Amino acid sequence: MSTFNAHDIASAAKTAFQEAQLISSYERVVALHEIWKSLEASKTEILLANEEDLKAAETEVKAGNISGALLKRLDLNRGDKWDSMLQGILDVAGLPDPTGNVSYASELDDELELYRVACPIGVLLVIFEARPEVVVNIASLAIKSGNAAILKGGKESNRTTTLLAKAISAGLSKTSIPELYIQAIQTRAEVSSLLQLDQYIDLVIPRGSNSLVKNIQNNTRIPVMGHADGLCSVFIDENADVTKAVRVVLDSKIDYPAACNASENLILHESVVHTVWPPVAKALLEANVKLLCDPTSLNALEQLSPKLSNFQTLVSPSEPAAYDTEHLDLTLSVIVLPSIESAIQFINSHSSHHTDSIITESDVAASTFCRGVDSAGTFVNASTRFADGFRYGFGTEVGISTGRIHARGPVGLDGLVTYKYMMRSKAPSGHIVGEFGTGKKQYKHKPLNTATVPFLK
Amino acid sequence: MSTFNAHDIASAAKTAFQEAQLISSYERVVALHEIWKSLEASKTEILLANEEDLKAAETEVKAGNISGALLKRLDLNRGDKWDSMLQGILDVAGLPDPTGNVSYASELDDELELYRVACPIGVLLVIFEARPEVVVNIASLAIKSGNAAILKGGKESNRTTTLLAKAISAGLSKTSIPELYIQAIQTRAEVSSLLQLDQYIDLVIPRGSNSLVKNIQNNTRIPVMGHADGLCSVFIDENADVTKAVRVVLDSKIDYPAACNASENLILHESVVHTVWPPVAKALLEANVKLLCDPTSLNALEQLSPKLSNFQTLVSPSEPAAYDTEHLDLTLSVIVLPSIESAIQFINSHSSHHTDSIITESDVAASTFCRGVDSAGTFVNASTRFADGFRYGFGTEVGISTGRIHARGPVGLDGLVTYKYMMRSKAPSGHIVGEFGTGKKQYKHKPLNTATVPFLK
Repeated sequence: MSTFNAHDIASAAKTAFQEAQLISSYERVVALHEIWKSLEASKTEILLANEEDLKAAETEVKAGNISGALLKRLDLNRGDKWDSMLQGILDVAGLPDPTGNVSYASELDDELELYRVACPIGVLLVIFEARPEVVVNIASLAIKSGNAAILKGGKESNRTTTLLAKAISAGLSKTSIPELYIQAIQTRAEVSSLLQLDQYIDLVIPRGSNSLVKNIQNNTRIPVMGHADGLCSVFIDENADVTKAVRVVLDSKIDYPAACNASENLILHESVVHTVWPPVAKALLEANVKLLCDPTSLNALEQLSPKLSNFQTLVSPSEPAAYDTEHLDLTLSVIVLPSIESAIQFINSHSSHHTDSIITESDVAASTFCRGVDSAGTFVNASTRFADGFRYGFGTEVGISTGRIHARGPVGLDGLVTYKYMMRSKAPSGHIVGEFGTGKKQYKHKPLNTATVPFLK
Repeated sequence: MSTFNAHDIASAAKTAFQEAQLISSYERVVALHEIWKSLEASKTEILLANEEDLKAAETEVKAGNISGALLKRLDLNRGDKWDSMLQGILDVAGLPDPTGNVSYASELDDELELYRVACPIGVLLVIFEARPEVVVNIASLAIKSGNAAILKGGKESNRTTTLLAKAISAGLSKTSIPELYIQAIQTRAEVSSLLQLDQYIDLVIPRGSNSLVKNIQNNTRIPVMGHADGLCSVFIDENADVTKAVRVVLDSKIDYPAACNASENLILHESVVHTVWPPVAKALLEANVKLLCDPTSLNALEQLSPKLSNFQTLVSPSEPAAYDTEHLDLTLSVIVLPSIESAIQFINSHSSHHTDSIITESDVAASTFCRGVDSAGTFVNASTRFADGFRYGFGTEVGISTGRIHARGPVGLDGLVTYKYMMRSKAPSGHIVGEFGTGKKQYKHKPLNTATVPFLK
């Protein structure tokens, strides 16, 4: 890629995509196994490059330029990371083909059939952060779903991702899939140029901060499937069970506070302030969760005698901005509201439309909450942490989309396909619309019950 | 709307959307009937306003500022336009509710159920051209699918659309749906301001020229479902039947040349140049179609003796730009290529990925074409003019999307919904993710066979 040219990269990707349209699902699985072999063969070389990336990053950490947390994410030698990266390829290979399925089929007229068929989107431009294994993960997803991909990782992992991409191309070179089907690029300037090429690139998938996603949306005509922040809430309804409340709130907050599906806001129905709230607060404080409380919830805790342990050190009044903050650590903002309606309104204004949960024993409240809350996930008596592609049963995860068009919430392989309509006339003289209309032929629109297109080879 | 403020309009639309989330499908149908009544009651007033719009437009036409074709589109008094506009409301009211359907359901664990449920998108900003009845059409679609909408018509129809919107609001005021659920705006400046408000507006639907769509895509972070040009092709394969070729090519070109699904390019397999091409050309010339021919197709016609009628006046050599031109009239660009592969490549480079058709008797060629052509519609022995929501059996049409994300090709009510995930734990102490993992509980992921969410009221 030394003689870089965004136009060349993008048009090569589009050509590779189009050429690969006739390649079978079976050959795509074979390609994934070839990539697996190729990566295994390059393991030593790649892990050495990764050590170099790590050393360079350590220098940057010492200089205070990047965070220590990034080092962990960068390290491919760590624990079973390499093995699970490789296993991930085989897992994706073994998933059902997301293309070819018919979601609508109709006989428009005798011998005129229409099929809506799942098919790849085209060329994906995927922009992600430090973790180099994402290259392999996304390449697998793209190949399995029949999309070409251009990948841009964090600059700290350049040595690693370059070799990973090289090994992927080497694997592809043993198959009928073009080598340029998966390409890796290195610099942010390249991304800017690629974002202008909507004639070649069909979808941009940024996985990172809100500002990364917004910045990309501001600079491209290409559709963006953003994976950004999560500001999730739990609402304890007036009919809440205390055990469920304690367990779900605690899990939502402490299971993995840095995740986008961790909860940041706790909303209390005013009727539970002296009943359910104290035991919930007790459990949170014992787990070292800092509580930013509105006056009512704070007052309820102040009235308790004796005070809950850690009350003095961990409980403080909230500022208004607290309810719009993704804490990403052991901090929870707490507010008391008079009704489920006001709680729904509050969530719709303050949450990021990611995942929100209600604790309630009432079916009516559960229904009202799930319909009224305008989020990708609306849960009843379950932790917000369940919002995840693997937990949902998709077998893999492209990410968690914070958009609401095309794919919303946890995205599996299905999020990487679109559809096309195929129509075939079997009539002796073909089909024309001029034969239909008032006083002429009428459309039948008879549903056809089929999962595949019969004439596709 | 005299004290205009884009922020007020957009936030009012979002509030109206959220408030209406708990309104039942039945009440939305009632609202459509109220709108129908309200429009009937205002008929005289609206048609008078329409005459004023027409008079003003006639002056503009005489001054050469706008085209005469626009007058036709503006006229609500013309033929059965009013009646069919009103009937359209009842038709939409009678369609199945596009929301509430479950497309994925899984038992993640004993007593933990996950549902993917169709739901409205949110606030739609719809920008369209002269035809004022689109206000009523889009308002009906938005209400039926549970979306709020902000509508901007062509400035030539302002008097008409203002009164149409007023009658719609009057209808809504008799229901539980907020009056600001449907709002009409008047100027382009308002659109520019609204395009910045991605916190309130969820989808922009421009229906117009390519340049309108691109201009909007360039100026917003909000997802855009564009409805732009169509550059469709018919490919006559080496195994084509001559009757089918003549009928389908003619219908694709002449049935309604100004439509986006009319054909602009005709591609001939080189083996049919002296067999199928002459009768096809004869039929086209007799229908007064101007043919812009590449050297091979031109030469084949020149060799004919006697010459086809109209040959001298209607046949001429093509310029390269002809194959990238949406003629929208009785003009067809013709090119000869050596194989189906080169035809597919040509279509993928020159067509607008709208709808393309192959004429062939070969199942292999049909399959190769339908898989290889990267368009929303790939047809076999059928006219490109079939690409249409009504013909596809959707009962209505939002438009024909030229994007490939979310909704592609003709868009019915389904294109105006997204989905959310609902999860409910029925376990005695709720569900938390901390209970799952190595050595702990495992996910069941057992498919649930249901079309609805059992706990939704």
